[in-house]
Amino acid sequence: MKQIITGFHAIEEKVRSACDSGVIDGLSLSYSKIGPRVKKILDVARTAGIPCSQVDGKNLDFLVQGLSEVARDHRGIVLCAEGDFDSVQNEVNFDTWIAEASISQKKSTILVLDSITDPHNVGAILRSCDQFGVSLAILPNRNSVNNVNENEIIARSSAGASSYVPYCVAKNLNRAVQKIKEAGFWVYGADAGGQSVQNITFPEKTCIIMGSEGTGISRLLEEQCDSIVSIPTCGKIDSLNVSVATGVLLYEVYRQSL
Amino acid sequence: MKQIITGFHAIEEKVRSACDSGVIDGLSLSYSKIGPRVKKILDVARTAGIPCSQVDGKNLDFLVQGLSEVARDHRGIVLCAEGDFDSVQNEVNFDTWIAEASISQKKSTILVLDSITDPHNVGAILRSCDQFGVSLAILPNRNSVNNVNENEIIARSSAGASSYVPYCVAKNLNRAVQKIKEAGFWVYGADAGGQSVQNITFPEKTCIIMGSEGTGISRLLEEQCDSIVSIPTCGKIDSLNVSVATGVLLYEVYRQSL
Repeated sequence: MKQIITGFHAIEEKVRSACDSGVIDGLSLSYSKIGPRVKKILDVARTAGIPCSQVDGKNLDFLVQGLSEVARDHRGIVLCAEGDFDSVQNEVNFDTWIAEASISQKKSTILVLDSITDPHNVGAILRSCDQFGVSLAILPNRNSVNNVNENEIIARSSAGASSYVPYCVAKNLNRAVQKIKEAGFWVYGADAGGQSVQNITFPEKTCIIMGSEGTGISRLLEEQCDSIVSIPTCGKIDSLNVSVATGVLLYEVYRQSL
Repeated sequence: MKQIITGFHAIEEKVRSACDSGVIDGLSLSYSKIGPRVKKILDVARTAGIPCSQVDGKNLDFLVQGLSEVARDHRGIVLCAEGDFDSVQNEVNFDTWIAEASISQKKSTILVLDSITDPHNVGAILRSCDQFGVSLAILPNRNSVNNVNENEIIARSSAGASSYVPYCVAKNLNRAVQKIKEAGFWVYGADAGGQSVQNITFPEKTCIIMGSEGTGISRLLEEQCDSIVSIPTCGKIDSLNVSVATGVLLYEVYRQSL
């Protein structure tokens, strides 16, 4: 499998992640023009031993064919990854993870995405997961998990966070949330009409479920929640963007832990 | 000028805003299938006297030609607005606004976007402005202010908030920020290495400047800031998505006012 990655942020983080882990096999960089950000990436890549080659801009255009409109805007540098790479890399086994979490005394935050499948939102949310120290992100079982194009958008929108945040894909969210509760987590569903987030003291083991903007959290899942949490708002429209709402809630959980 | 609006949220809010203001001239709805959300929109529109007509799905596909990939996904309903509509509607005169704000005792929050031009981000940010009660959003002077396609994406991403949030476009941000300071606002620049947001008590008149993800706030503008404010984060990548970061800061300002 060959993966094409564009976007300064996504490339930088992928290169940095590869350097950290020492796994650079199959990675190569192609660039057409050297601006300050390209130079910065090349410096790190060369130090790590990742092959870098200057090519014509048209070669880059060719490489990015078939990617999404946004991803095709390569800005003069493209990272190729050949091998068993996956753009959302840190997949963990849910049962193993939750078994360990259930006996651990460590502070831990789980984020569950229910029906949030837009890859731009998933990417931005993974970025917030990284920045606010989420221990595990549970992504919905998309219709096409191996959709390379979609994974590409997630990786790009996450600015590389998808290489760092532990995640798993749950086939049955209801069963997963049940196990999360059994492992000692307090499960908050994000929805209107709940307890205002700034009045909640989040416990050491916190799980937050976010639903999609259109439909919210599914009924079965909502019934399993220990509490409903809301973000205080005013205004005329009815909701925040789902990545913004997730960011605000994760910020509150993280802020309280400081 | 004719404007084509898609997306349940954007259409709902546009229809609601038109009903509130009583200005429905030039508006019409075309739909192909009646799901629960389409029905909800049609009910409101019909009550307000907006013409609604059922058409073939292919007619809708034709209407949305030329829009962005995201906007072309019409989900069975399209709003047409003919006349002098603008998707970002609440433009105010900056000098008049700031003169009034300088003598007002009311709590007021200004958000300045420096070089944030991606319409998806601007839209999501306007949505947060609405939800967290921002009094004025100052948008950057885009290269093509009258770019219909871009305004369309802003309107759609803002889920209709662009019809409500007072905004202006500043040709010279440095001069604008100078006037904001003269009007008694305390100006915070959002950047790494500043004072942590949860340790700040925001004054009644607060102005927040957000820079773009790549380059941050411009040097001249940063020199004008009274303080630099940061969001506490951990994690491996270097920043949050700019709409998420803006949302978190506006949430903090709003939360403190409750």
